[in-house]
Amino acid sequence: MTRILFYLDEPGKEVWRPAFEAAMPGVDFRDYPNWGSPDDGPAYAFAWEPELGLIAKYPNIRAVFSLGAGVDHLTRDPDLPADLPIIRMSDNGLKEGMAEFVLMTVLMHHRFMPRMLVAQRKHKWQRLFPPRAKNVRVGILGYGALGIACAQALRPLDYRLAAWSRTAKPAEDGIEHFTGTNQFNDFLARTDILVGLLPSTPETTGLLNANTLSLMPKHASIINVGRGTLIDLDDLVALLDNGHLSGATLDVFAQEPLAANDPLWDHEKINITPHIASITRPETAAEYVARNIKKIEAGQQPENVLDRQRGY
Amino acid sequence: MTRILFYLDEPGKEVWRPAFEAAMPGVDFRDYPNWGSPDDGPAYAFAWEPELGLIAKYPNIRAVFSLGAGVDHLTRDPDLPADLPIIRMSDNGLKEGMAEFVLMTVLMHHRFMPRMLVAQRKHKWQRLFPPRAKNVRVGILGYGALGIACAQALRPLDYRLAAWSRTAKPAEDGIEHFTGTNQFNDFLARTDILVGLLPSTPETTGLLNANTLSLMPKHASIINVGRGTLIDLDDLVALLDNGHLSGATLDVFAQEPLAANDPLWDHEKINITPHIASITRPETAAEYVARNIKKIEAGQQPENVLDRQRGY
Repeated sequence: MTRILFYLDEPGKEVWRPAFEAAMPGVDFRDYPNWGSPDDGPAYAFAWEPELGLIAKYPNIRAVFSLGAGVDHLTRDPDLPADLPIIRMSDNGLKEGMAEFVLMTVLMHHRFMPRMLVAQRKHKWQRLFPPRAKNVRVGILGYGALGIACAQALRPLDYRLAAWSRTAKPAEDGIEHFTGTNQFNDFLARTDILVGLLPSTPETTGLLNANTLSLMPKHASIINVGRGTLIDLDDLVALLDNGHLSGATLDVFAQEPLAANDPLWDHEKINITPHIASITRPETAAEYVARNIKKIEAGQQPENVLDRQRGY
Repeated sequence: MTRILFYLDEPGKEVWRPAFEAAMPGVDFRDYPNWGSPDDGPAYAFAWEPELGLIAKYPNIRAVFSLGAGVDHLTRDPDLPADLPIIRMSDNGLKEGMAEFVLMTVLMHHRFMPRMLVAQRKHKWQRLFPPRAKNVRVGILGYGALGIACAQALRPLDYRLAAWSRTAKPAEDGIEHFTGTNQFNDFLARTDILVGLLPSTPETTGLLNANTLSLMPKHASIINVGRGTLIDLDDLVALLDNGHLSGATLDVFAQEPLAANDPLWDHEKINITPHIASITRPETAAEYVARNIKKIEAGQQPENVLDRQRGY
C-alpha cells in the first residue's frame, strides 16, 4: 500500500483524492494537516508550496513530487533534506495546457488582439493589418519538455521558430537553436515574440532587463509563462511605455497572487493571467506519480529528478 | 495587356498596385475614379463595396473579382448585370488569416481568456480551470474553403470537431459532418464553441436567434467571422445576459463599422474585432486574380464563380 502525503492550499483541492484513488487502488491518501506520524512508515509527498520546515519533520518521506513543473516552491525551504529526491511534474496534461496557452498568446500578439481589445473599450473600429506568419519570428526561451511541446504546437503555423537553451539540444527541422550565454543576445535580436519558459534559478533571475530587452527588435512582445523572477518588471514597463516593446502577457509573478493594488493590472499593453498557462491535471498527474513510485520501488531512476546544482 | 479596374475605399489601398504589377507584368491598373472610358477595351473589375450602379456603367467589364470571400457587397447592387461572372476571393492568404484567427479565438473561449481579461480590469486574481480540449466540442457552421482551412488548423489540438454545411461534403476522419436543415438542430445541440462562417443569404439571415441559440448547451460560446447578418444580436445579448451563453467574439456586423455609440462595445461577454479575422493579402490575391484571368481568356471555367441562385 502506497502512502501519499498531500499538501495544497487552494480551493477545489478535493479533486485530487479520487484521482489518486483511481491511479493507485488502495492508496493511503493523507491531506495535510492529517499526515499522521513519521512513524507510520514510508511515504511520498505530493506538494505545492508546503510550509517551511514541514518536509524535514517527516523523515519517512522517500521522495517529494512537485505538483507543478517548477520546484522553487520546495527548494526555498532551507530545511529541505539535501539528499531527498525532488521530482518535477511533467505529465501530459501540463504539456497540453502549456502548448494551448502559448499557441493562443503567440497568435494574440501576432494578430494584434491586445490592441484591438483596448480599441474596443474606446469604441474604436481600428483595423490593424498583421504581418503574415512567415514573417514573424517566435523565440522560445527555455527548451525543456514544456518548450518542446510549445514548439510542436506552433509548428503547423508558418512562424519562424527558434529556441534558446542553456545546453545544446538535438537539431530539428524548422527550428533554429541557440545555446548558452554566448548565443543569448543573438537569440533576442532575432525574436519578435518571446515565450519565457525558464525555471527560477540565480542565473535566470532578472535575465530580462533593460539591457537585454533592448536587444529585441522594436515592437517585439513578451509572453512569460515560466517564472516571474525572469523579468525585471520596472524595466519591462519602461520599454513598453517608450514604445520599444509592443506588449506583454504575464502569467507568472515573483509574488503570487499579484497584489490588488499593483499598477500592472491597469497597464494597457500588459495582459495578466493568474498562473493558469498550464495547470497540473489531477488525472494525468496522479498517473505520473503512480508510474514514478513504481520505478522508485523497483530500484529504477524516476523521471525528472531535480538536479539541485543547476536548479531544475 | 490586362486591364484591372480597382475599387477600394480604405486607407492603405496603395499597396495593391505593386502587388498587381508583380503578379501581372505590364498590367493596366486603374484605381477608381480613374477607370477611363468603357470604350477603352476589355477589363476586369477588382472591387470591394463599389458604388451602386457603377459596375453597370462599364459594359467592358468581363468579370468582377470580389476583394473578399463574401459577395453581398456586390450583389446588393440592383443594377449589377445578371450575366456578369462574379468571382469570390479564395486566395491562400485569406485562408491562412482565417485559420489563425479561428484557432486563436477557439483557444480564447476554451481557456476562458475573455473572462480573465475582465478579471484583470477588476484587479482580480481569478483562477479558472478549463476542461481538457478532448472534452470541448467545436462546431464549424459553414464548411467551404475557409471552414476547411479552420478545421485543418484545429485538428492538431484534441477538440471534438464537427462541421455543418448546406450540402453533403466528403467524409473525413476526426470531423463529424452535419448536413442540411434536418441536422442543423443536432449540430447546435452538440456544439460548445460555434464558429460562424456562413455567407449572407436570405436563408442565413437571422439563422442564429433566440430559438436556435437556445438549443446550444449551457455556457456555449459563439465566434462569428462570416457575415454579421447571421445573428440576431438582441437575442444573442439576451442569452448572454441570462447566462445560457458564456461569451461571443464578433468580427462582422450587419452595418460596418459598428457605430461608436453601439452598446455592444461595452458588453463584458462580447469581444469585438473590426472585420479583420481574415484579410485579403495583396500578394496572394493578385496571384489568384492573375491565374483566373488566364483561365477566362483560355476559355476555361475560373474558380469560385458566384452561383447567384444560392448566393455564394
